[in-house]
Amino acid sequence: MRAAVIHGKGDVRMEDRPDPAVRSASDAIVRVTASCVCGSDLWPYRGVVPTVEPHPIGHEFVGVVEEAGAEVTSVRPGDFVIAPFVASDGTCPACRDGITTSCDRLGSWGGEDADGLPVDGGQGEYVRVPEADGTLVALPEAPDEALLPGLLTLSDVMSTGHHAALAARVAPGRTVVVVGDGAVGLCGVIAARRLGAERVIAMSRHRSRQDLAKAFGATDIVAERGEEGAAKVRELLGGVLADSVLEAVGTKGSMEQAFAVTRPGGQIGYVGVPAGGAELPIRAMFSGNLNVAGGVAPARTYIPDLLPDVLSGAIEPGRVFDLTLDLEKTPEAYAAMDERRAVKVMLRP
Amino acid sequence: MRAAVIHGKGDVRMEDRPDPAVRSASDAIVRVTASCVCGSDLWPYRGVVPTVEPHPIGHEFVGVVEEAGAEVTSVRPGDFVIAPFVASDGTCPACRDGITTSCDRLGSWGGEDADGLPVDGGQGEYVRVPEADGTLVALPEAPDEALLPGLLTLSDVMSTGHHAALAARVAPGRTVVVVGDGAVGLCGVIAARRLGAERVIAMSRHRSRQDLAKAFGATDIVAERGEEGAAKVRELLGGVLADSVLEAVGTKGSMEQAFAVTRPGGQIGYVGVPAGGAELPIRAMFSGNLNVAGGVAPARTYIPDLLPDVLSGAIEPGRVFDLTLDLEKTPEAYAAMDERRAVKVMLRP
Repeated sequence: MRAAVIHGKGDVRMEDRPDPAVRSASDAIVRVTASCVCGSDLWPYRGVVPTVEPHPIGHEFVGVVEEAGAEVTSVRPGDFVIAPFVASDGTCPACRDGITTSCDRLGSWGGEDADGLPVDGGQGEYVRVPEADGTLVALPEAPDEALLPGLLTLSDVMSTGHHAALAARVAPGRTVVVVGDGAVGLCGVIAARRLGAERVIAMSRHRSRQDLAKAFGATDIVAERGEEGAAKVRELLGGVLADSVLEAVGTKGSMEQAFAVTRPGGQIGYVGVPAGGAELPIRAMFSGNLNVAGGVAPARTYIPDLLPDVLSGAIEPGRVFDLTLDLEKTPEAYAAMDERRAVKVMLRP
Repeated sequence: MRAAVIHGKGDVRMEDRPDPAVRSASDAIVRVTASCVCGSDLWPYRGVVPTVEPHPIGHEFVGVVEEAGAEVTSVRPGDFVIAPFVASDGTCPACRDGITTSCDRLGSWGGEDADGLPVDGGQGEYVRVPEADGTLVALPEAPDEALLPGLLTLSDVMSTGHHAALAARVAPGRTVVVVGDGAVGLCGVIAARRLGAERVIAMSRHRSRQDLAKAFGATDIVAERGEEGAAKVRELLGGVLADSVLEAVGTKGSMEQAFAVTRPGGQIGYVGVPAGGAELPIRAMFSGNLNVAGGVAPARTYIPDLLPDVLSGAIEPGRVFDLTLDLEKTPEAYAAMDERRAVKVMLRP
């Protein structure tokens, strides 16, 4: 099969890889029908995270089950499935608590499963899915092609935006600021509106992203940053800061921005993978009762909740994809996102 | 009047100070009937926090209103009142959100009010109370002498323990660990039980504090610390860590202990004033979805909620006082707490 492999900074290549086979009775083989590049894939691509040795890459995909191991009961060949961005068994204590990302039998696309066996990346033609019963969400029937982008976002960015909104305790009557105008931040706008927020302020300096944020339900845009941005938020909210703040970047600057726009007693939901110098200002948090929740989103838990709204068209997170390329063009997809020529690129094998 | 003044490390003196007078129409003068020494008072006493210049000290007191300014409407001379550990106006946006500790017109006992006027400390005979309407909670009638210790804890430690429990999202069915066996931790045990937790594990190595924790409703005691303590918690909870963890110390060690006993997706409520190297482990938080809430407790918001349970005897937080001294013996009260001869010392003018 053909699959993307990262070799180091700026070096993603399409290569021939062995077709995957069932290696455990709980595995399934999925033929990928759509995958994509994540903002967090850019970290090794940019060399922020070192690539110690070449490995397959990509952790967001949807597809069709080709084969299922003997113990698999929840999906069968021919099912259209959504894969969350990690594999999980669905039965361990963490999974039962809904925190599937802390599963005792966690598996990583492009990495290893819980038994140490290699797992394919999502940016390829086929993937061996460990713990298929716990991991995959099957649809009752094959979806319309037009729904594919939206379904693909459930793999990560829409579920992650939802996690940020839940962590920030978004609810009717609460005011919301979203820090970060990438795909996750934009999905955070959708999630905040979906959870009932009437006032959602998106912080963005890019016209096309501002427009998409508005299309997703943002009521206000703040282009200013830092203290100036916080002052603008305060002005928009009648002299107070926000109840709920979604942090969807993970840098020192975005984290500081999130704290700067949160009212005393307010809640920050953060889902940006903490990069470089990102840290939490414990003294400011303590004196202002600024609360922090979030982390790596348990997408598997959220897919069943969000799926009906994608299928009905009530939400359209698939609009974050502004470029679609053939799988063979994966290196170009990385370059387009790295250079911010695209918000998010879908790949079609 | 007589009042305690801190001059520096290990140096608290009883001195003659001017009797306070109403300086603003929103002031009240309170004759202190009971006050006490807080664990956080030990920080300047131990020199951990420097004392730049001598100032009155003490921030927990109850008493009787002697005089009220022309604009004061909620209390009148003769009323028995509880003072939370800071003054607040009750009308600003933060106060309306319940975060009275972030009031626009915050005032500090032993420090200054919002107009920069000096404010008396609680460890004295009289206190000028700024923003009396917002700050003081009056009882309908003078309480029985036996209730005085319990009422005094509402000023800080019981309200702070309650804040930790709320921040940790304690609720029926959730498992709880309390890190810290000082007065706040012990009150945290009371608060956790009061909020419906059936399982409350107190981490304590001191027999008398273990006994008090049990009397307050702790179902289990863990004397071990570090990873050994976490293993014990996991064993007690059937192989998983705790849903809700109360951190009531504020040191690097206690914060690490709190994280070590929290399950993935669990909630830490922290109220220990962050000391020295206390910091938040953002990467472990992110990967495990370990959530953090809390800070300086808005005692003023909680006093009306907790008061009926103290008056009825449903909770007995006053039992944290294991020594009562005359106000004149305030220096000895500091020494007793510093040397851990007493959990908490009540002072009677």
